[in-house]
Amino acid sequence: MSNKEGYIGVFDSGIGGLTVAGSIMKSLPNENIIYFGDTAHLPYGTKSEKQIREYALNDVTFLSKFDLKALVIACNTADSVAKGTLEEQFDIPIYGVIEPASHMAARTTKNNRIGVMATAATVRSQAYTRTIHWYNDQAEVFSLACPLLVPLVENGRYRKDDIVVTTVLQEYLDQLLVHDVDTIVLGCTHYPLLMDAISSLVPDLNIISSSEAAAETLRRSLIEQDLLKETPGSTRRYYVSDDPDHFHENAVLFLGDEIQAEAELVRV
Amino acid sequence: MSNKEGYIGVFDSGIGGLTVAGSIMKSLPNENIIYFGDTAHLPYGTKSEKQIREYALNDVTFLSKFDLKALVIACNTADSVAKGTLEEQFDIPIYGVIEPASHMAARTTKNNRIGVMATAATVRSQAYTRTIHWYNDQAEVFSLACPLLVPLVENGRYRKDDIVVTTVLQEYLDQLLVHDVDTIVLGCTHYPLLMDAISSLVPDLNIISSSEAAAETLRRSLIEQDLLKETPGSTRRYYVSDDPDHFHENAVLFLGDEIQAEAELVRV
Repeated sequence: MSNKEGYIGVFDSGIGGLTVAGSIMKSLPNENIIYFGDTAHLPYGTKSEKQIREYALNDVTFLSKFDLKALVIACNTADSVAKGTLEEQFDIPIYGVIEPASHMAARTTKNNRIGVMATAATVRSQAYTRTIHWYNDQAEVFSLACPLLVPLVENGRYRKDDIVVTTVLQEYLDQLLVHDVDTIVLGCTHYPLLMDAISSLVPDLNIISSSEAAAETLRRSLIEQDLLKETPGSTRRYYVSDDPDHFHENAVLFLGDEIQAEAELVRV
Repeated sequence: MSNKEGYIGVFDSGIGGLTVAGSIMKSLPNENIIYFGDTAHLPYGTKSEKQIREYALNDVTFLSKFDLKALVIACNTADSVAKGTLEEQFDIPIYGVIEPASHMAARTTKNNRIGVMATAATVRSQAYTRTIHWYNDQAEVFSLACPLLVPLVENGRYRKDDIVVTTVLQEYLDQLLVHDVDTIVLGCTHYPLLMDAISSLVPDLNIISSSEAAAETLRRSLIEQDLLKETPGSTRRYYVSDDPDHFHENAVLFLGDEIQAEAELVRV
């Protein structure tokens, strides 16, 4: 089934997944995109696996009402615990963020010591450890739950000159540096906003954004399947399950000023 | 109807309400308490009012299966948007946190300038402003959303020697100090853990904890109604809608080491 004009469905528990959507817009500017942020139930990172799977099923049930050619789980937590369940239930090619970032980290490391910064739920799932080992069985993976980073970013605190940001980041990074890692995966879609602050603190390390890695994998896969949209122009639609105004305020942070992201409210 | 042996039902979106439960345990050690933390849907503070009312109705529907003599909304957000709805639906005396703290602030201020620190939803509801005015129509109320304080406390960052805590607090406090307030209400049940840090930064101000104020109002009301439990010993039961292990870890922070709070999982 070839469907070049179909939508790329992207979902997350909230707004973090917009860094994935933003990376897709950059590398595939002609594609039609439907974004769904399940803001009524955010954050997923603190919920149980059963609960997260239930939410993810509802999210994709909503998105699958549209004509989708690909679905992107733009949330490390949902990817780590719900991807298998979603693949069983839906007949759409499903892309995550963990596999692309793991693949890139496995190829990038020189000393086979990789750190992963993520939410507690993603760390508990051990999804990065398993996936990185699948690509590089020599690698040692050190995963660290960094629960304060999402609230900091969502409150606009991600700049490298903010003592709050650098103190919290330095404490987290120290826990990875003791393991002599040479590569760090930002295993949460909020974290790419911290890229500058992290790079300033550890300028010699390779920092891999799961959002950029996911967009690059999607691009290559669409090319391989001959599914790239060929007509110019794109439709982008945004839906949230709660509080569209709050979404709009934060979308500017995640997508940049140039993209107008007005979200419609849906109940899932 | 007199029911001295009945339970005091206490609910919150998560663990913050434990500071209210803890204050009740301190001032009314013989009372039977049922605590429900709706951890599947936390935090309420970022959700819409409609959604919060829906959650609160489910919470109290669960608690009302027990023989309750009083119900305490141990969550400023739920109190501010859902108390009226709950009073319409349930025939139980319902106590909040906002009225007790407002009453105390209205009596305490000398210059009639009162600051309120709370979640975004509580601030939007203007419940503190309205309630303080009801007790003191001369008072000017300055409310400030402090969205980073809950995540900081939940990550164990509340001590007065933590630069992250003091930097974030100082920025929030500065926004109230420009209004020359002499009294500040901690309008979120997480904030009493920050009492020391806040008092160190603004030692000359009156800081009012909504958790302590709520427990004191409940105590006086039970005495007036002749509803104090007279038999010694107490039953305390804890329920959560998600992740009881996480609840247990944090309960130590909120109730202190001496109280063993093991929660059972229920779906609401």
